[in-house]
Amino acid sequence: MDSYCHCLYFGRVKLPVVQEAFDRLLSGDRILLSRLISLAESPLPDHRLYIAELLSLISSIPDKSRRIGITGVPGAGKSTFINVLGKLLTAKGHKVAVLAVDPSSNRSGGSILGDKTRMSELAEDPNAYIRPSPTSGFLGGVNAGTRTAVRLCEAAGFDHIIIETVGVGQSETAVENLVDYLILLMLPGSGDELQGIKRGIMEIADAIVINKADGVALPMAQKALTQYRSALKLFPPHPAGWKTPVTTCSAQEKSGFNDILESIQHYFQEQTENGYLGSRRKSQKVKALQEILREILIHTLLSDDNSRKEVESAEINVKENKADPVAEATRLAFLFKTTS
Amino acid sequence: MDSYCHCLYFGRVKLPVVQEAFDRLLSGDRILLSRLISLAESPLPDHRLYIAELLSLISSIPDKSRRIGITGVPGAGKSTFINVLGKLLTAKGHKVAVLAVDPSSNRSGGSILGDKTRMSELAEDPNAYIRPSPTSGFLGGVNAGTRTAVRLCEAAGFDHIIIETVGVGQSETAVENLVDYLILLMLPGSGDELQGIKRGIMEIADAIVINKADGVALPMAQKALTQYRSALKLFPPHPAGWKTPVTTCSAQEKSGFNDILESIQHYFQEQTENGYLGSRRKSQKVKALQEILREILIHTLLSDDNSRKEVESAEINVKENKADPVAEATRLAFLFKTTS
Repeated sequence: MDSYCHCLYFGRVKLPVVQEAFDRLLSGDRILLSRLISLAESPLPDHRLYIAELLSLISSIPDKSRRIGITGVPGAGKSTFINVLGKLLTAKGHKVAVLAVDPSSNRSGGSILGDKTRMSELAEDPNAYIRPSPTSGFLGGVNAGTRTAVRLCEAAGFDHIIIETVGVGQSETAVENLVDYLILLMLPGSGDELQGIKRGIMEIADAIVINKADGVALPMAQKALTQYRSALKLFPPHPAGWKTPVTTCSAQEKSGFNDILESIQHYFQEQTENGYLGSRRKSQKVKALQEILREILIHTLLSDDNSRKEVESAEINVKENKADPVAEATRLAFLFKTTS
Repeated sequence: MDSYCHCLYFGRVKLPVVQEAFDRLLSGDRILLSRLISLAESPLPDHRLYIAELLSLISSIPDKSRRIGITGVPGAGKSTFINVLGKLLTAKGHKVAVLAVDPSSNRSGGSILGDKTRMSELAEDPNAYIRPSPTSGFLGGVNAGTRTAVRLCEAAGFDHIIIETVGVGQSETAVENLVDYLILLMLPGSGDELQGIKRGIMEIADAIVINKADGVALPMAQKALTQYRSALKLFPPHPAGWKTPVTTCSAQEKSGFNDILESIQHYFQEQTENGYLGSRRKSQKVKALQEILREILIHTLLSDDNSRKEVESAEINVKENKADPVAEATRLAFLFKTTS
């Protein structure tokens, strides 16, 4: 790709040339970091090329951060949990970035404002950076936007990237394919409160933490702990022999976090040494390349008005049992060849 | 799409015009059925259009069959299980088609020959049809080929389609998106034998059956039964309130199948009445349209020699940490616009 050096605007803001943006990012320029995360959402070809070129420069920097995913139903206390975990990490000298995937979704019931209130201590910490990730409707799906945000944060010097997501739908899939360590936050009690969470998530979690284990809920949390531990024995084992820890905590009372920090430490040490984390990242990246390419090709198809109408009407016909999905996909693909 | 009426060959066999193929399929022509399932693998544009047109005709036929997926680790006894289940269904007057997804994969250790031996009774039943589905490397992924095979079988009058798959990788995902009812076949004992099975599969199963519950393994099977039942209480609940049954059986001794048949009957009745099955099929079809279209677009890109080389080298660079996946996907997509 030719170097992107001509003048480029994002809204009314003039962007620095890519090399300068790279240098400023490395020096920790947070205003630029936020702007670039937003830019990564833009569908404009110039913006996409700018981000692509910047990411190419960044790819020379080893991706040595720890990427930790936090998922769980709304109400599990994810933000409060991250507030405590983040503060403990910065106290150890780490730089922590928190990305919230799809937090403004109407479906999830979460809100950026709510998140910031619950993370007030971390938000004021000079070694932490909190921001919602690109939400939806942007080029390349959740995958491309969040992945870009992670890399930008890593370039800006953050060594722990915490990615918060509600345990539903597409945002969840993106996180699976992005993090090194996925913590599933549960509530004391049975599976009933899991209504709406993505099925299958329990088995891919690298740790299960029962939050809100305090006050009158303590006995229930202890019971849940025992139940989950014995249930995990029936699950397919982790590919690298990791024993998924089940622990309790109270983010409100800031208790139980020593176990969590120790298990994170243990995991990253063990799974780096045995090579699992390296191969997990590798396969995540290849998968991301393929998936994002697929997304962009679809986007290219949909950016043509006539093609988009054809796709939309195919979807409706398939939904209403008037057309076969394989037949429609075949027809649409032929259309693509002739119109693009 | 214009009607496909000119002369078309598949290998050395001349294919009937689409309308005639449709009529012969409806009358139950099995030689043609097998040939068409093979044809659905072909990447040739003429063949793809032929299949697409045939599927369009078939889409006028209501898809009223019961699509039952059988998954589990190699050695769980899937083929023997299907042999017994299939015979019980044909004894009730049903017509049963068995499609084995990816059975010849080297990875799975399965073989078509082995399957046929284990399904010898069903194979000789005039109301049953057994054949391996398209395997790999064909257009549209496992999804398009298997989905087409299912529709062709339905058109040929089969009211029960059993789809067998090893519980790993892509074949598994295809089955998730295709069946109404997914049976996970387990072995007596703990989760250790699940090594290699797709994580997350336990939670999406609509039924768990512990096979080989006979002889000395009987106490172990009973213990597993209790454990799985209590573990399931911790899982996210089924979206339509279905309580995933856990039962034991012995395909060898043909015992335990009354429970299985009853639960299938119960499921299809309840979940048809409450509308869940209808909406499950609908969302499966929309997802299939999108996924197959993505696959075909990628195929179009890869069918150009230069583009394919670019994609291959991007994959290698990403794998070796020399390039960023988002940057590479962006670059490749621009390439597509100019070469196609």
